[in-house]
Amino acid sequence: MNRKKKTLNQESLEKHKKFGGKLSVQSKVPLLSKKDWSLYYTPGVAAVSNHLAKRPQDARVYSIKKNTVAVISDGSAVLGLGNIGPYGALPVMEGKAAIFKSVAGIDAFPIVLDTQDPDEIIETVVRIAPGFGGINLEDFASPHCFYIEEQIKKRLSIPVMHDDQHGTAIVVLAALTNALKVVGKKKETASVTIVGSGSAGTAIAHLLAKAGYEDIRVVDRTGVIGMHRTDLSEHKKKLARLKTARKKAERFSDAVVGSDVLIGVSGPRNFSKELVASMGEKSIVFALANPIPEIMPDLAKKAGATVIATGRSDFPNQVNNALVFPGVFRGALDKGVSQITDEMKIKAGYALARLVKKPDANNIIPRVTDPRVVKAVAKAI
Amino acid sequence: MNRKKKTLNQESLEKHKKFGGKLSVQSKVPLLSKKDWSLYYTPGVAAVSNHLAKRPQDARVYSIKKNTVAVISDGSAVLGLGNIGPYGALPVMEGKAAIFKSVAGIDAFPIVLDTQDPDEIIETVVRIAPGFGGINLEDFASPHCFYIEEQIKKRLSIPVMHDDQHGTAIVVLAALTNALKVVGKKKETASVTIVGSGSAGTAIAHLLAKAGYEDIRVVDRTGVIGMHRTDLSEHKKKLARLKTARKKAERFSDAVVGSDVLIGVSGPRNFSKELVASMGEKSIVFALANPIPEIMPDLAKKAGATVIATGRSDFPNQVNNALVFPGVFRGALDKGVSQITDEMKIKAGYALARLVKKPDANNIIPRVTDPRVVKAVAKAI
Repeated sequence: MNRKKKTLNQESLEKHKKFGGKLSVQSKVPLLSKKDWSLYYTPGVAAVSNHLAKRPQDARVYSIKKNTVAVISDGSAVLGLGNIGPYGALPVMEGKAAIFKSVAGIDAFPIVLDTQDPDEIIETVVRIAPGFGGINLEDFASPHCFYIEEQIKKRLSIPVMHDDQHGTAIVVLAALTNALKVVGKKKETASVTIVGSGSAGTAIAHLLAKAGYEDIRVVDRTGVIGMHRTDLSEHKKKLARLKTARKKAERFSDAVVGSDVLIGVSGPRNFSKELVASMGEKSIVFALANPIPEIMPDLAKKAGATVIATGRSDFPNQVNNALVFPGVFRGALDKGVSQITDEMKIKAGYALARLVKKPDANNIIPRVTDPRVVKAVAKAI
Repeated sequence: MNRKKKTLNQESLEKHKKFGGKLSVQSKVPLLSKKDWSLYYTPGVAAVSNHLAKRPQDARVYSIKKNTVAVISDGSAVLGLGNIGPYGALPVMEGKAAIFKSVAGIDAFPIVLDTQDPDEIIETVVRIAPGFGGINLEDFASPHCFYIEEQIKKRLSIPVMHDDQHGTAIVVLAALTNALKVVGKKKETASVTIVGSGSAGTAIAHLLAKAGYEDIRVVDRTGVIGMHRTDLSEHKKKLARLKTARKKAERFSDAVVGSDVLIGVSGPRNFSKELVASMGEKSIVFALANPIPEIMPDLAKKAGATVIATGRSDFPNQVNNALVFPGVFRGALDKGVSQITDEMKIKAGYALARLVKKPDANNIIPRVTDPRVVKAVAKAI
C-alpha cells in the first residue's frame, strides 16, 4: 500500500511536470488572415465592445461569460492537507477546472488568492467577477467560508457556490435518500448524527433539514451542538436550532447510541468499532474523511452497519463532489439563473439518487464517470 | 467606406455571438479512466499540492503558472472608445488573449475589473497573481496607469507590463530606428515632438530618451510640457525634465517647426497639413490615433513627409502592439525573468527593427503575421 502510494505520488508529480500543469487556453476563432484580425480584434471588436458597454447583460451572448466559471481558492483548507496556501491549492483548482471541462464542457479557470482575510477575499472576488458566468468557491476554511459565500452571493447576480459545503451536501442527500430505501427507513423519523461542524457538516445538516429530515444533530470536538452550550459561534448556534428528537444527548457517544445514520466529515479513524456497534438496527455509516475515512468499510461492516459510504474510489458508494458541481454550473449557466437555491440543491440531490434504479447496500450513488450524471443534475437547476 | 464599416461591425457581432466569445479552456490531461482521475485529481494531486506548499517557486514547473498570463483591464481607456467599463473591455481582452495563444503559444486569460479605483485595482491584481506567470495590464487610463503599474511591479516578482505604455513604446522605437535610417538622420540629433501625454506618449518619450534620443519634447492640450509650466502633475514633471534642444518652444506649433519627427498618440485629425509642412526636410510622421489617425497618410505625404506610419492595417507601416506583447511575455516566461527592464525593451525594439533588412519609406516595421517576430522579440528579453 505504502509503495503503491509512493508510486502514484511520484507518477503524479512527473505527469504534472511533463504537461506543465493541466490547463490550456485556446482561441475559438481563427487568427490567420488580415480579415480575421479585423473581425476579432481591432477595428471590428469595437462594435462588440460598444454594444456591451451599453448592454452589459449581453456579455452572456457575445463574450466568454456565458460558459466560464472561476474556480477560486485561498488554499486555507485543501483536501486533507489543511492550510497550504495558494500555490498548494493551485493543482487542485486546475484539476477541478479540468473536470468541469471534461465532464460538463464548461470553461473553468483557476484563481488562487494571496490573501486569507475574509473581507479582502470578498472584495477581490466581486471585483474580478464581470468576466465570469459563475463562481465556484473551493477549499475555504470554516467558519470564514460561510461569511465569504454569503457576502459574495449578496453582491453578485451570478451563481456562486462553495462546493465544499453544497456540493458535498447534495451528494450526501442523494446517497442518503437511497441508503434509507435500502434499509427501509424514512427521512422524517431517521435519527441522524453528523460528526464535524466544518463547511461540509454544516451544509449537510442544513440541507437535510430543508429536505424534511426531522432528527438531526451535529457533533464538534466539544460534543453535541445544542442550546445547552455557551461556547457556540454564530454558525454553530444555527446548527443548535435544528430539529432533533434527542435534546438530552450532550456527549458524542450518547448521541450515536441507537442512531440510524452516522455521517463523518471530520478526520481519519474518528469512529471506533464500538461506536458503530452502538447504533440502531440496519445502520447507515458515511465515513467521508479523505483519504483516510473515520472508519474503514470492512470494520464498519463487522460492527453491524448495513450501508457504508466513503469518499474513496476504491470502495463502493463513493461520495464525490464531482457528481454535482459540473452539473450544477452547467444548468445554472444554460438557464442564466442568478442564484443556486436550496430548492435546486434538493432537486439535484433527488435527481442524482434516481439515477440508481435499484439501490442496494453497495450501490446507492452513481459513479463520476456515469454519462447521465451531468444532465440529470443540470436539469434540476 | 461607411457601408463597409457597418458590414464589418455587423459581421463581428454575429461571429462573436456564434462562437460565444473567443476563448475556451481545455484540459491538457486525459480524464477518462479511474487512474487518470487519481493521478490528476484526488488522491494523486495531493503530492503536487504538498510539494508546492513547501516550494512555491516550483509552481513554474508543476502548474499552469509557467505559461499563463493574465490580461487585466478596468475598461477605463479602451481602444478609441474611452471609458467603457469591464463589460465593454471584455471582448478586447479576449482578443488579446487569443492573439497571445495564436502567435506565441501563451495561455492568456482575461480578467476585467469591476473597479476603477487605483488602490483597489492594485490590491486585486496582487491578490490574484499567484497562479499567473505574468501580468499584462491593458487599457488603463492615464495618469492612474502609471501609479498602478509601478505599485504592482513593486509588489510582485513576476513580469508586469502595461501594454498601452511599453508595447507601444517598443514598436515606436523599432519603427523610428528604421525610419531614421531611411531619411539618413541620427537619434542623437533628431528633433522629436510627441503629441499626447497619456500612457503611450509618456512611455514613448521615456523609452526614446533611454535609447539615446537627446531632443524630445511632449505636447499636451495646454502646449509643450516644460519646466515653465506650473500646472504639471507628477508624471508630466518627469516629461518636462527630458533632454530637449528647444527649451523655448511653448506652443505646439512652434515646437513642430523644423522638427524631424512628429509622433501623434492623441486623437483623430489633430495634425493639419500646414503643421506637417512646417517640419524640417525629410520629415517622419507617426500618426497613431486609432482608428482615425492625426493625419491621413496621403495628406501627410502631400505636406512633405517622407516616412509615414499609422496604427492601421490598411496603410503601410502599421505600428501595432501585437508585434511586441506576445514576444515580450514569451521571452519573460521562458527565461523566468521577474521584471521587464528598460534595457530589455530597447533590445526588443532593435531586434524588431532588424527584421526589416532593407528599410524604405513604406517598409520600416514587420507585419504582425511575420512568423519571425515573436522569436526575435523573445530573444531580446
